[in-house]
Amino acid sequence: MSEKPKLITPRLPRGFEDRTPGEIAAVGAMIDKIKAVYERYGFDPVETPLFEYTETLGKFLPDTDRPNAGVFSLQDDDEQWMSLRYDLTAPLARFFAENFETLPKPYRSYRQGYVFRNEKPGPGRFRQFMQFDADTVGASGPEADAEMCMMMADVMDALGLAGKYVVKVNNRKVLDGVLAATGITSDAQKLNVLRAIDKFDRLGLEGVEALLRHGRIDESGARMPGAGLGAVQARYILSYLNSMVPAGQRLDPRYEDRDLVLHAYVVQDGPDGTPGEGGHKDEPFTLGKVQDDFAANENFRQGVSELQTIELLARAAGYGDDKIKIDPSVVRGLEYYTGPVFEIELTFKVQNEKGQDVVFGSVGGGGRYDGLVSRFRREPVPATGFSIGVSRLANALKLTGNLGATEPVGPVVVLVMDKDQTARYQAMVSELRQAGIRAEMFLGSTKNFGKQVAYADKRNSPIVIIEGSQEREQGILQVKDLIAGKQAAQAITDNAEWKAARPGQFEIKREELVSAVQKLLSEQ
Amino acid sequence: MSEKPKLITPRLPRGFEDRTPGEIAAVGAMIDKIKAVYERYGFDPVETPLFEYTETLGKFLPDTDRPNAGVFSLQDDDEQWMSLRYDLTAPLARFFAENFETLPKPYRSYRQGYVFRNEKPGPGRFRQFMQFDADTVGASGPEADAEMCMMMADVMDALGLAGKYVVKVNNRKVLDGVLAATGITSDAQKLNVLRAIDKFDRLGLEGVEALLRHGRIDESGARMPGAGLGAVQARYILSYLNSMVPAGQRLDPRYEDRDLVLHAYVVQDGPDGTPGEGGHKDEPFTLGKVQDDFAANENFRQGVSELQTIELLARAAGYGDDKIKIDPSVVRGLEYYTGPVFEIELTFKVQNEKGQDVVFGSVGGGGRYDGLVSRFRREPVPATGFSIGVSRLANALKLTGNLGATEPVGPVVVLVMDKDQTARYQAMVSELRQAGIRAEMFLGSTKNFGKQVAYADKRNSPIVIIEGSQEREQGILQVKDLIAGKQAAQAITDNAEWKAARPGQFEIKREELVSAVQKLLSEQ
Repeated sequence: MSEKPKLITPRLPRGFEDRTPGEIAAVGAMIDKIKAVYERYGFDPVETPLFEYTETLGKFLPDTDRPNAGVFSLQDDDEQWMSLRYDLTAPLARFFAENFETLPKPYRSYRQGYVFRNEKPGPGRFRQFMQFDADTVGASGPEADAEMCMMMADVMDALGLAGKYVVKVNNRKVLDGVLAATGITSDAQKLNVLRAIDKFDRLGLEGVEALLRHGRIDESGARMPGAGLGAVQARYILSYLNSMVPAGQRLDPRYEDRDLVLHAYVVQDGPDGTPGEGGHKDEPFTLGKVQDDFAANENFRQGVSELQTIELLARAAGYGDDKIKIDPSVVRGLEYYTGPVFEIELTFKVQNEKGQDVVFGSVGGGGRYDGLVSRFRREPVPATGFSIGVSRLANALKLTGNLGATEPVGPVVVLVMDKDQTARYQAMVSELRQAGIRAEMFLGSTKNFGKQVAYADKRNSPIVIIEGSQEREQGILQVKDLIAGKQAAQAITDNAEWKAARPGQFEIKREELVSAVQKLLSEQ
Repeated sequence: MSEKPKLITPRLPRGFEDRTPGEIAAVGAMIDKIKAVYERYGFDPVETPLFEYTETLGKFLPDTDRPNAGVFSLQDDDEQWMSLRYDLTAPLARFFAENFETLPKPYRSYRQGYVFRNEKPGPGRFRQFMQFDADTVGASGPEADAEMCMMMADVMDALGLAGKYVVKVNNRKVLDGVLAATGITSDAQKLNVLRAIDKFDRLGLEGVEALLRHGRIDESGARMPGAGLGAVQARYILSYLNSMVPAGQRLDPRYEDRDLVLHAYVVQDGPDGTPGEGGHKDEPFTLGKVQDDFAANENFRQGVSELQTIELLARAAGYGDDKIKIDPSVVRGLEYYTGPVFEIELTFKVQNEKGQDVVFGSVGGGGRYDGLVSRFRREPVPATGFSIGVSRLANALKLTGNLGATEPVGPVVVLVMDKDQTARYQAMVSELRQAGIRAEMFLGSTKNFGKQVAYADKRNSPIVIIEGSQEREQGILQVKDLIAGKQAAQAITDNAEWKAARPGQFEIKREELVSAVQKLLSEQ
C-alpha cells in the first residue's frame, strides 16, 4: 500500500448482525438445555456443512409462496451450482440418503446451526439466523409425531416456560379431507383457504369467514382479498374449525348444537359492495350433514385417527391439553407436510409495534413430511420433525426473565503504574489466573491512573490491583473494590470527603494477592 | 410432482464434510476448555455473521501467495459484492472499526466459527473449516504479544498436551532487519528467502542454504528452485538462524565461536551445474561482522528488544523455554504481520503419508498486525492475536488420547411387542426420561423382536425393556442388559446353551422400571 487509500465505511450487508457477549452466553446456555432434552429422547447430533449442491436442496422451502423467498447460490469452478442451506431439513434428506446403508433406522437426529435466506430483510427478520431441529426418519406411525410434541413440551418446560406455552397439533390429511369434502379443487383456492384457516386464532370465525368469501379490511385499512368461496363452502370450513373442538370447549356457542342451522353465518354484503349470497340463507344445512360429508372422506378419517393416537399417547405419558392440544386451525407450511403438523405457541401477552396486546405466538413447529428423501431414493421414507427458531425463542426467554445473565463478569485488572515493572504486574496476573480467577494486566498505552480505572469500569471489572513505587517498597498492594466503590460513590457527594474515605479501597500484603481477591470476589 | 422425476445422487460439493456425533461431542468439549482459558485471560466473545461486504474483507488473506487462494463471493440485489469470511480477523477489523466509540480499549475478543476458502480441496484440506481466534486490539506493546504466547501455552496445558508442545516466537522486524542488512531488496527474493527460513526446522542449515542459493532436490525427487542468493548473502541468513539462539544451545556447533570464519558453509556446485561462488571461499567474513551489520539496523534492534521483553515476561510468569521459546526460523504469513509472530508446534512424532516419522507440527499461530483497522480509520490501531485450527488440533488430541469420548452412549430402548399397546410403552419411556434417563420407544415398522434388538445394538443401547402379553398379565418386565449380553455372547459358543442361559436378561416388577434401570446403568 503506497498512497493512503480511500477509507471504507465499516458496516454489514443488510439482514446480517453481530452478536454480543451477553447474547452469545445466554443463547449458548439455552441451546445446552435444549440439547439435553433432545439427547434424553435418544436423538444424536449431526452437522452438515453450510453448502449443498443446489439440485440437492431442491425446492423444499416451507414458504415458497412468499414473493422474495430465495437462496444464496453460486457456481463452483466445475460449473455446478452450490447453495447455502436455507433450512436444516433439506441437508438432512441428503445426509440420510447418502448414509442410508449405515444409519440406524429409525434415525433420530438433531441439528443446530445457521441457515440463510436471500430475502428482503426487515425488523427482526434476518438473512442469517439459527435453527435447532430434531427429526425422526424412517418412522411412519403417529407415535413418532406424538414424541415430537412431547419433546417440544419438555423443551419449553426445561427453559422455564411451563404454563406459558401450548403445543398445538393438527393434521394435513384432515385439512385435505376438509378441502375435498368442501369441493375446493383449485390449488390457488386451496392456498387461500388454508391461509384463512391459519388466521383463525387472530381473527375468529367472522374474520375467517370474510377471508374465505369476499375478503376483509384489516386493522391498517388494507384490503385483504378473499378466497371467493360460496356461503355453503364457507360453512363447511367454519364448521370444521369448531367441530374438531370437544363439546363444551367450542369457540362459538352457536356451534354447540350439532344440528344448528348455520343461518347466522351468512356474510353481509362486502365492503366493496359485492352482495352476500342471500339465496342460501335459509337452506336446511346442518353441521350433521357437514360432518357426515367429512367422515366420508378417507383422508379426513385417517387424519383424525392419527390425531386421536397422538392425543392418547400424550395423555398416557402425562401431558394434559394445557401442554399438547389438538387445534384445527394449525396449518404450517403449505406444500411441505403430509400428515400431522405441530406448532409451539407461547401464550403470554406482549405488545406489538402498535402497542396492542397480542400473544407472543409461534417459536417453532414442524410436522410429518414423507416426501423428504424421495428426490434421492425410490422407496418411501417417512419422516417427522420440528424446528425451533433460536433467536425468537431467546427473545421470548428474555421477555419472561428466563434467559439468564446477559453481561459477563469482567476481569480483575492489574494497573500498570510503572512501565518498567510490567514483569511484576504480569506475575501477579499469572498468579490470579492460575488460581482460576479471571484477570488481566492493563495493556493500553495510557499511564493515566483515572483512565486505567475507567477501562476497568467499562469492562465490568469487580476489582483493580494497584502497585506503585511506594507500595512496592513496602511489599504491599492496594485493592480497589469497584463494586463497593460504585455504591459508595452514590452516597458521597463531597469531593474532599471522597478523597479521605477512598471507599472500597484497602491495603494487603503482596503475598496475600490471591487469597484477598478470592475473599473479596466471594463477598461481592 | 406428477411423474417420477430423475433421482439425484446424494453427495456434497468437494471440500465439504459432515460431522458425526462423536466428532461434535469431542470438538465441543475441546472448545469449552479453550473458551475457559480465553475467558480467564479477560477475553470476551463476539460473533460476526458469515457474510461481509467484499471490500470490507479486502485482501488480508495470510496466504495470498498461494495460487488458488480465493473467497466465495456473490452479488447482492443492490449490486454490491458480498463474501463469506475467509478468516476471523478481517471481520474483527470491521467490527472494531464499526464499534470504535463504544468498545473498551484495549479490546480483548475471542471468536469461534466456520471460515470458507474457495480453493482446490485436498486430503485434510477443506473449503469450510473452523477457527478459534483471540485478539487484543489497541495494545501496542510486546506485553500484549507475550500474553498471547502464555495464553496459547495455557490452552495446550488445559487440553492435556503439557510437555508435547512449544510456542515458538519470532519477530517480523527482526526478519526484515536481517533481509535489509543482507542487502535483499526485491520482493520476490524476500518471499523466497522467508520461505527458505521457514523450512529450517525440517531441512536444517544445509537444506536452507541450498534453497537460499541454487535450489535443491527434495525427497520426492522434485526440484525446489533456489532464491539465487550469493554465498555471502546466504551466510548472513545462516548466521542469523544460529546467532539468535543462546550460546550452548546453537543448532550447529560450528557457530558456537562468534568469530568463526564461515568457509564451511560455501555451497557446492548446484545439481544443475551452476558453479559455487568459489571466489568468496576464503573471504575474512566473520559472524562478528554479520552481527554488527544486523545491529546497525533499527528494525532488527527493535525486534530483538521486543523479543527480549516477551521472554522476560514469560519467564516472570513462570513459563520456561520448554513452553515459550524464541525461534529465529518462525516466519508465518508473508505480508500480514508487522511485529512478533508466534506458532504453536506440537512436538510429538507422527507418521506422514509416506510412513516417515515427522513432528506433528503447527496447530495454530498468529502475530502482531498493526495495519488491521487501517482500511477503515486513519489513526494507527495496533493489534495482536492468534488463531487455532480446530480440526487439526482435534486430530492431534485424538492421536494423543486427549480427545475424550467419540461414541455417545445410546438410549434405553423399550421394544414394541404389541402394536396396540404403544400407550403403555410410551408411558414407560416417559417415566425413564423424567428420571433423566436417555430412553426411547422403538418407532420402526418391524414387529420382529430380533430386528428391534439389532436396532438397539446399532444405537449403542445399554438396555432393552420387553413387555409382551405374558409379562403384561403378570405385571412384570424383561430387562435385557446388552453390554453383559455382548460379553457373554463372546464366551458362549453353543446355541442351545445360549437359549438356556439368556445371558444378561432378568425380570423385574413393572413398578421397579426406573429404579432397576438406574441400578443397572450405574453398574455398567
